[in-house]
Amino acid sequence: MHYFWVMSARMTFWFEFASTYSYLTVMRIEALARERCVEVEWKPFLLGPIFAAQGWTTSPFNLYPAKGAYMWRDIERRAAGYGIPFRPWSGKDGRKFPQNGLLAARTATAALRERWGKEFVRRVYSAQFANGLDISNPKVIGDCIKAAGGNEQMFLHLGHSNTHKQVLRENTDAAIATGVFGAPSFTIGPELFWGDDRLEDALNWALSRPA
Amino acid sequence: MHYFWVMSARMTFWFEFASTYSYLTVMRIEALARERCVEVEWKPFLLGPIFAAQGWTTSPFNLYPAKGAYMWRDIERRAAGYGIPFRPWSGKDGRKFPQNGLLAARTATAALRERWGKEFVRRVYSAQFANGLDISNPKVIGDCIKAAGGNEQMFLHLGHSNTHKQVLRENTDAAIATGVFGAPSFTIGPELFWGDDRLEDALNWALSRPA
Repeated sequence: MHYFWVMSARMTFWFEFASTYSYLTVMRIEALARERCVEVEWKPFLLGPIFAAQGWTTSPFNLYPAKGAYMWRDIERRAAGYGIPFRPWSGKDGRKFPQNGLLAARTATAALRERWGKEFVRRVYSAQFANGLDISNPKVIGDCIKAAGGNEQMFLHLGHSNTHKQVLRENTDAAIATGVFGAPSFTIGPELFWGDDRLEDALNWALSRPA
Repeated sequence: MHYFWVMSARMTFWFEFASTYSYLTVMRIEALARERCVEVEWKPFLLGPIFAAQGWTTSPFNLYPAKGAYMWRDIERRAAGYGIPFRPWSGKDGRKFPQNGLLAARTATAALRERWGKEFVRRVYSAQFANGLDISNPKVIGDCIKAAGGNEQMFLHLGHSNTHKQVLRENTDAAIATGVFGAPSFTIGPELFWGDDRLEDALNWALSRPA
């Protein structure tokens, strides 16, 4: 009798729908992971409870204006460098930041069990950051489900279900337990990487040190 | 009559002696700038007044423990990747973080007018982050001056002079006016880059868009 041990490189990708830097990663990660044959598990979570535990009532990019101004410019430069469409805003055009990504995140926990789940996630981020839409609007989320190839009514329903509220809560608890404090984050076992600018490092870590 | 217009690529490098990420940049920047023929002006400044204006009484890495734990590990990984010696600490061995870099910064404003100034800066960072020494100790700073090739007594004296206190204050005001909120930072005209992980981007920006 023979046993075959297949070691595969794996990584968990933690993202929050309101996060600008998560947008860059969502648009980049699939191609980079495929190149390296790293299997990536996508986990939506909420930054709100993490920020609240630090005494923040909104994004640090709002609390610290110099940091916020820098972030918008930095994302604009990096998106341009990657060829990712990006429409910056800063509240002046009436759109608020951060957006409420709760419905998107709950729907994603259901959608990511389907083949079209990642495409759904990309479409939600594009709706928000390339097209300037409000992702707390069920119509916007429904359009993203449909465009990705899912059943709009069924998945909007799942997005409101207690099961998926619970999955999202568990994701957030698991993120905190692993030391995650911002988005995007990447974990390979206990090893944590934070920020879109650590994406390549994290994938290379997963590849060279399979968990 | 002919006029010759020489365009040169230039960048300002803002650093704070207590900053761990500034250490990585200080050890890397000369070779990278030379490769690209970018002229870099080194400007020490103080993060203390910037943090205080945000209501912080210490480094955000102390205020937000998850972020702090991540930073120490991130620096350790990146220093190893660059082959830069690094001895992490976190207060457990009695050494405090952040260190008081006031004397180092004042002395640097004088030393950076000399040929050995950058070597002095590198030696101070190495004393702190590779050798675990206390850079608020005049003996440590004196040794760094001497090892870099300067006159220890003269420059320790200059480090205590009102002129160099004033230069450091002006650097800090100029940093704030340019939008600097952390260290290391890089500016090319109004364009700001923040973090050791933006060093290459900033140099490339300076090169492709001379100010």
